Amino acid sequence: MQTHTTDIDILLSDGIKATPPSFVRSILKAASDPNVTSFAGGLPNPISFPQEDLMESMRRVVEKQGANAFQYSVTAGIPELRRWIADRYNHRFGTDYTEEDVLITTGSQQILDLLGKTLLDKGDGVIVEKPTYLAAIQAFAMQQPVFHQVELTDEGLNIDKLNEALDKGAKMIYMIPNFQNPTGLTYSARGRELVREALKDRNIVVVEDDPYGELRFEGDSLPYIGGTALPHGVIMGSFSKTVTPGMRVGYLLTKDHELLRNLSIAKEAADLHTNVFAQYVIVDYLEHHDLDEHLVKIRDLYRTQAKAMTDAMEEFFPESVQFTKPEGGMFLWVTLPEGIRSMDLFPKALEQNIAFVPGDPFYPEPGAYSTMRLNFTNADEETIRDGIKRLADVLASELKG
Amino acid sequence: MQTHTTDIDILLSDGIKATPPSFVRSILKAASDPNVTSFAGGLPNPISFPQEDLMESMRRVVEKQGANAFQYSVTAGIPELRRWIADRYNHRFGTDYTEEDVLITTGSQQILDLLGKTLLDKGDGVIVEKPTYLAAIQAFAMQQPVFHQVELTDEGLNIDKLNEALDKGAKMIYMIPNFQNPTGLTYSARGRELVREALKDRNIVVVEDDPYGELRFEGDSLPYIGGTALPHGVIMGSFSKTVTPGMRVGYLLTKDHELLRNLSIAKEAADLHTNVFAQYVIVDYLEHHDLDEHLVKIRDLYRTQAKAMTDAMEEFFPESVQFTKPEGGMFLWVTLPEGIRSMDLFPKALEQNIAFVPGDPFYPEPGAYSTMRLNFTNADEETIRDGIKRLADVLASELKG
Repeated sequence: MQTHTTDIDILLSDGIKATPPSFVRSILKAASDPNVTSFAGGLPNPISFPQEDLMESMRRVVEKQGANAFQYSVTAGIPELRRWIADRYNHRFGTDYTEEDVLITTGSQQILDLLGKTLLDKGDGVIVEKPTYLAAIQAFAMQQPVFHQVELTDEGLNIDKLNEALDKGAKMIYMIPNFQNPTGLTYSARGRELVREALKDRNIVVVEDDPYGELRFEGDSLPYIGGTALPHGVIMGSFSKTVTPGMRVGYLLTKDHELLRNLSIAKEAADLHTNVFAQYVIVDYLEHHDLDEHLVKIRDLYRTQAKAMTDAMEEFFPESVQFTKPEGGMFLWVTLPEGIRSMDLFPKALEQNIAFVPGDPFYPEPGAYSTMRLNFTNADEETIRDGIKRLADVLASELKG
Repeated sequence: MQTHTTDIDILLSDGIKATPPSFVRSILKAASDPNVTSFAGGLPNPISFPQEDLMESMRRVVEKQGANAFQYSVTAGIPELRRWIADRYNHRFGTDYTEEDVLITTGSQQILDLLGKTLLDKGDGVIVEKPTYLAAIQAFAMQQPVFHQVELTDEGLNIDKLNEALDKGAKMIYMIPNFQNPTGLTYSARGRELVREALKDRNIVVVEDDPYGELRFEGDSLPYIGGTALPHGVIMGSFSKTVTPGMRVGYLLTKDHELLRNLSIAKEAADLHTNVFAQYVIVDYLEHHDLDEHLVKIRDLYRTQAKAMTDAMEEFFPESVQFTKPEGGMFLWVTLPEGIRSMDLFPKALEQNIAFVPGDPFYPEPGAYSTMRLNFTNADEETIRDGIKRLADVLASELKG
């Protein structure tokens, strides 16, 4: 028996060996110590879960749908919810989506998995932002693609670098144009146009991941880059940041029905369909309440929390440390002077009971990164101010040393 | 624009091109005509959903867990549910599983996806029964493996063929030892021993998919082949056939923690974690009710339905047509005389308002198959008898012709 138990390594696939475990999840344990002020997580504030209203919806769903809500269901997702989503986007962006353009998924994380499988073979190119969402790196890495990272600017993507990456060849570009994870940056209207212009004559799937789009607390909503404007445009959305992440209901919209058909085959093979009870509950909640009213509460809170964090950074951080000022979402991004590795800083901050996510997992290439991501949605103003002050002390002593 | 919209084909991966869409799902529309008696589906009878008890559990979960039940959660699944599952298996089989050996998944379908990703590279061998579960073919096909099919006997697997397949090389063997889907066959105690003996000196992951194990309506429960007895044994289970399929809660048990760690990374990349609300509701239901009492109802119903079907087959089917007599589960298997293609029979039966699943999708290799799967859990005795009589007429006229 003993000889066998170590033999599993030679049975593992190249794909899984290429897939990094999530750094964030691995540090969550350290960060969950109640004495630690954690800016590391990515949890929405519980204020965003309308618990009582959802309970009411559950009662109605059991009464109205009966066994339907507990039986196997269709892979695409229930028509009621797909229609609600199409209508919402049409109302917000003047698009012409219908329920036929929508696939309901097990959280929007699943879309990353489905896109990877459906498009990428080993060695295929995929363009991502530099830095990008760590769980997208994880999901795509399983397919062993070549990552082309394109630098972010205040306007969006560096267009010269984007064209270089496109010339190298890529099947998909993956972007988070609103309050990007991890940087908190938002592409400007002009930045979006420039990217659209660069992409329009290329045969490439254009994915815009937009989990935070409804959480804009400054400025005006901007049109998507691809969406319905480019032939292989895919918009990713989620109820995780607006209703509940625990129920794992995400969705994608695309007018490319051949792509959608293939993504649906991948979805069917992955988990048959998304929890149908959760789908009924969420659409019932959306039909019986004004989502915009609910969102006001979340946006007001996050605006206050983000301001508390950037105010404290302005007051306490050494001048050589830079940070972004997000217009929405849940994160901001700190850039340290060159030579300071955020990965080295992490244990020192943890000693002072402060946790953040070092920049490293947001890049597919290993490196000595001087960046870090901070979440502002899960602490009150006082805790944020106090935590940033203590982090500033750690930074100051590191800069001196 | 027009030139682009057809260009998606060249962007699709080899993996998705190798993945067949589910035949069952594609015929479900035809079979959902209310005039059609459908033996095609694989739906558990709604009697198995304890709707009112689940509603009660939901109330308790919202009250007791509050925001916890709606927030992001851990990839492994909630400890309460993992403990309940380990205890149940230990009680039934005298094993020593703990919560550390359990991973909660989005239905047991997801386990097939995770196993494929974690173990199989293009060209790797995987051993499956002949015939096997069509959605397993679908999930594994994404990795472009080589399928080695091993014939089923009344005892289990044909051992000579199994050894031949093992000699060709395989990273995983996938079996459904209880009331197999599609055949309804169950491996005997001796058959299990022979398979275990053949596998014990091989370095191979031994997967036993057991969604119907609790639905035995004849005979006694038998030990697993691998489970805790072989170093890379994996047991797959599900609440889909005992509580609700709509909520998509499945699980696997394994003592191979290195394999489990890798499956968990794949799970994290696939959808972060399984719907946590559903996990809390199911474990609350299980803790407040006697599952065995609930199962008696389901088993009694399925026993009656299975008997109605085999009785009618004995009465009406031509002698040259063979069929299995399952001891549990949801399906039985019909073998037609050689030369009669069940795929050709399908449209003729549908004209007479009878639907079944032709054998073809249960084999990875295309062929002229003379087999078909019939589900007996979703019609009453009279409907079953009448449907089998009409199917017998179709068969009789085909055999004459």
